[in-house]
Amino acid sequence: MGSCCLSTNVSFHTAIQEEIHAVEERIRSQVDGYHPDIGAALDLLLSSGGKRLRPTVTLLIGHMLDAPQERLITLASAIELLHTATLVHDDLIDGSLLRRGNPTLNSQWSPGATVLTGDFLFSCAAKLAADTESVPAIKLFAQTLTTIVNGEITQLFSSRSRINREGYFKRIYAKTASLLETSAKSAALISPEVDDETVEDMRKYGYEIGMAFQIVDDILDFTSDEKVLGKPVGSDLRQGIITLPTLIYSETSMNDLDLHALLESNCLINEEQVSRLVIAIRESGAIDLAFEQADQFVQRGLASLRKLPESLERQSLEELAEFIVQRKM
Amino acid sequence: MGSCCLSTNVSFHTAIQEEIHAVEERIRSQVDGYHPDIGAALDLLLSSGGKRLRPTVTLLIGHMLDAPQERLITLASAIELLHTATLVHDDLIDGSLLRRGNPTLNSQWSPGATVLTGDFLFSCAAKLAADTESVPAIKLFAQTLTTIVNGEITQLFSSRSRINREGYFKRIYAKTASLLETSAKSAALISPEVDDETVEDMRKYGYEIGMAFQIVDDILDFTSDEKVLGKPVGSDLRQGIITLPTLIYSETSMNDLDLHALLESNCLINEEQVSRLVIAIRESGAIDLAFEQADQFVQRGLASLRKLPESLERQSLEELAEFIVQRKM
Repeated sequence: MGSCCLSTNVSFHTAIQEEIHAVEERIRSQVDGYHPDIGAALDLLLSSGGKRLRPTVTLLIGHMLDAPQERLITLASAIELLHTATLVHDDLIDGSLLRRGNPTLNSQWSPGATVLTGDFLFSCAAKLAADTESVPAIKLFAQTLTTIVNGEITQLFSSRSRINREGYFKRIYAKTASLLETSAKSAALISPEVDDETVEDMRKYGYEIGMAFQIVDDILDFTSDEKVLGKPVGSDLRQGIITLPTLIYSETSMNDLDLHALLESNCLINEEQVSRLVIAIRESGAIDLAFEQADQFVQRGLASLRKLPESLERQSLEELAEFIVQRKM
Repeated sequence: MGSCCLSTNVSFHTAIQEEIHAVEERIRSQVDGYHPDIGAALDLLLSSGGKRLRPTVTLLIGHMLDAPQERLITLASAIELLHTATLVHDDLIDGSLLRRGNPTLNSQWSPGATVLTGDFLFSCAAKLAADTESVPAIKLFAQTLTTIVNGEITQLFSSRSRINREGYFKRIYAKTASLLETSAKSAALISPEVDDETVEDMRKYGYEIGMAFQIVDDILDFTSDEKVLGKPVGSDLRQGIITLPTLIYSETSMNDLDLHALLESNCLINEEQVSRLVIAIRESGAIDLAFEQADQFVQRGLASLRKLPESLERQSLEELAEFIVQRKM
């Protein structure tokens, strides 16, 4: 979590931070007794930071709904480790050398070792999910991995020229919102005496903030800078990935030759084209319109919390949703 | 299952064959509604055959112990699909172009698409495991994937010169026996009113025949021919993998220069060295001694069935165990 939450109850946030720490410890303990290089890889992955957004959502919702703490930490660990495992294979496939400013596993290891490390972490995430002993949560967890991977395969095989908003929203659902949805919904599923309506409200909260989070991530790839981002600006365009700012820009600027080259050729565009296109998209109204879209998701996410009684957890979930559109990294 | 079982009750074996068919259908149905190329990949993987040894073990044990049929087919599907998924990443990492005489996925697809297809199939296997609704079976399933992948990572990072029988047995446990152990044990776990001793006997049966199966697989890489094997003879030696025949041969023939080159260099040996070494190992007593070792595992597997009442299923499990040392492919 960012500084968004420090304005409220300090001891409460210290407690959540301690649980996030317990989640990290639980994840690390999964590799005890296995090949030492896996432990080294996991340390590298965990120490490179990340916002721990998913376990934070799980913990806040679970506490709000009186989930047993131990199971909640197990569930949050399963979710964060699943997220970490997907990044290992993603970076390998994309050939990414940096994530959050740190070298990726595939930049240092052979492809075979990287594939297997990802597989190993998937298996540990599955064990943690099983340790929740909640069959509905385990099923949701497995289904989410199917959704995430299907999204990646669809992206790999899809044509750039055909992408539209519907395709973009499907893609970011698979990539990000599905796991945030699961982070939220599964916390409700392991909580005692939660009615179906609350489970659905929590699912919706996770979905909406997940969609907003990915839109903002895609915006930051245009508006941030390399130091803050931990990777070069414009990397989506460089990889031929069309995100919301580019889509919005394309709706009014199809005569931009760089954009035309990006959408119509099967090749990647060059560095000069990437730079020109980043500037053109920044200077168009596309960024503001994309933020508006993200904010609409956030507002729907906030609305889904309204039926719940007020609590420190609910307040933090609201702040978390608002932080998503305010964040700079 | 091979022709080993056709000598007993024909209608019984027809019933098992029909269930194996139901397992294949269940596996295929997992990809419905997802990217069509995944379905095509799965069809390729399933149509390339395989003995369906693991689901056969699950079905026979489950029926013997009165497991509910629907859950049993779900479990057997989860196990066979997990096995299939591991082969996708294995073949990619080994750079294998053929499996059972058919082109591998990685020989036709990009590494990225192959990694993701493997991940997708893992996720579907996890969903099927969750569909058994047996938390102990789900836990065992996840643990088995951890064991399999840890074995592969250990093999990737280990030095050839250090391999001994203990290391070899650990490796084939991870590679093969662990999933056969799980195929057997999990069938007992989803059966009603099965005592701990029977669960343990079933686990042991799966473990022992799994160890024997892999030893025979490793022997056939020396004694079979390319047509039957579906891949070139001596492929383990070619990849620098030391299996039991080579280990036994090394105990008496350390002055063999080809063997010395294989064990002491960090490079792979050439085709001429592979051919000479295959002949030398074939002509030594190593093959017979390796078969004796496999047979000891089979005998212990048979012993673990003895406490169970006689039944068609038990008889088939015995025949299956014996088939393992008699098989030619």
